[in-house]
Amino acid sequence: MQLFIGNKNYSSWSLRAWYLLSKFNISFTEQQLVLDTPDFYDRLKTKFPVQKVPALIDGDLAVWDSLAICEYINDAYLNGRAWPENLNKRAHARSVAAEMHSGFLALRNEMPMNIRAKRHVELSEHAKKDIARIDEIFSMRPQSSSNTWLYGEFSIVDAMFAPVVLRFKTYQVTLSSPAQAYCDQVLSCPVLNNWIAHALQETDIVTRDEAGENII
Amino acid sequence: MQLFIGNKNYSSWSLRAWYLLSKFNISFTEQQLVLDTPDFYDRLKTKFPVQKVPALIDGDLAVWDSLAICEYINDAYLNGRAWPENLNKRAHARSVAAEMHSGFLALRNEMPMNIRAKRHVELSEHAKKDIARIDEIFSMRPQSSSNTWLYGEFSIVDAMFAPVVLRFKTYQVTLSSPAQAYCDQVLSCPVLNNWIAHALQETDIVTRDEAGENII
Ligand SMILES: N[C@@H](CCC(=O)N[C@@H](CS)C(=O)NCC(=O)O)C(=O)O
Ligand SMILES: N[C@@H](CCC(=O)N[C@@H](CS)C(=O)NCC(=O)O)C(=O)O
Repeated sequence: MQLFIGNKNYSSWSLRAWYLLSKFNISFTEQQLVLDTPDFYDRLKTKFPVQKVPALIDGDLAVWDSLAICEYINDAYLNGRAWPENLNKRAHARSVAAEMHSGFLALRNEMPMNIRAKRHVELSEHAKKDIARIDEIFSMRPQSSSNTWLYGEFSIVDAMFAPVVLRFKTYQVTLSSPAQAYCDQVLSCPVLNNWIAHALQETDIVTRDEAGENII
Repeated sequence: MQLFIGNKNYSSWSLRAWYLLSKFNISFTEQQLVLDTPDFYDRLKTKFPVQKVPALIDGDLAVWDSLAICEYINDAYLNGRAWPENLNKRAHARSVAAEMHSGFLALRNEMPMNIRAKRHVELSEHAKKDIARIDEIFSMRPQSSSNTWLYGEFSIVDAMFAPVVLRFKTYQVTLSSPAQAYCDQVLSCPVLNNWIAHALQETDIVTRDEAGENII
């Protein structure tokens, strides 16, 4: 199985699929492509109808789009355990994941993932509303145990929101304390830190993702 | 089960969930709310964390977001048959559905769903690229039989793309002939025509969705 991803510093959608696969210890080969280079498009073009990452090759099968990759992995390798087992919890988790997949455009535009940076940005009202809603989502995780994921066990939802946690760090967003506690937990995950460590070694610059003013 | 939807003339996301439920003959009560009215937000606020349609109440359970509603219905009522049965075809279908859910922003912005209108719009290069990609998706349906859906049987993908078919009609988009043949089939579906008939009786105006110039 080969997972095509972009620059670890910037590629938020790539991180989702990579995190799910890595967290569940599914063995795969990482094929890293540099965003905005001819090679990026050339390498994807022969295999996928859409030239975006993440994109997965499993034998003869091509799967693209982060959410579809997560669903496929859940289906084909995890016997459904990447979603909560309970039907109602699963519906809730899917609502939140789909909300993320199709929404939060202001936040995505104004606060691009940029792991190595520490920035200040002036946010629009839309972006502030996005942050408030995500604070609510992060705060709803079960409070019973201290290191639990959004739906108890690690699920696709945690993978989908990991890039947002990294954005909140880059742009120093102030959250409620339950939401911050969730972020702290994600940021202490060894699997995620492996991605971060590689991101910090990268040197390519994607200008459009360099938003905001440096904080020293 | 209650499905909250918006104006049938405009609410593209609502149509997706409504179409899936209706096409599979699942019984539900339709709760129609008028977009952009205080009543819209009031009625959703007490039941859902997000004040958007479509939104579903099933007993104690609240599910929101069109894709999550489709997945829930598939899970809870259809024993999985709203996706192709074959694992590889299912992964492909999910890729296309997720691509729609998170993408085609230019098309969505420049060509809002507006069933009763017949319009001309000047499209950006991005929107033209979106249309070309959708043409490719519509053209890949099995050519074996004449009235087959994108993956053979009707699936979530067809529900997700129905609003796009209606947009192509409103804005008179020229497609390849296999893509147009798929649109024609969707437009002849009696279930969809039931939605269209109601849309044509509506009189409320949502100004932001009135793009383009009238064609007489
Ligand atoms: N909805 C897709 C979006 C993927 C996407 O836009 N990826 C970006 C990198 S993070 C990309 O490949 N951009 C290249 C391009 O658009 O040319 C997903 O969830 O995977
Ligand atoms: N991703 C959501 C989007 C839903 C959405 O934006 N719905 C529109 C109507 S088509 C809405 O409720 N807008 C009201 C608002 O945003 O205030 C879905 O798939 O259901």
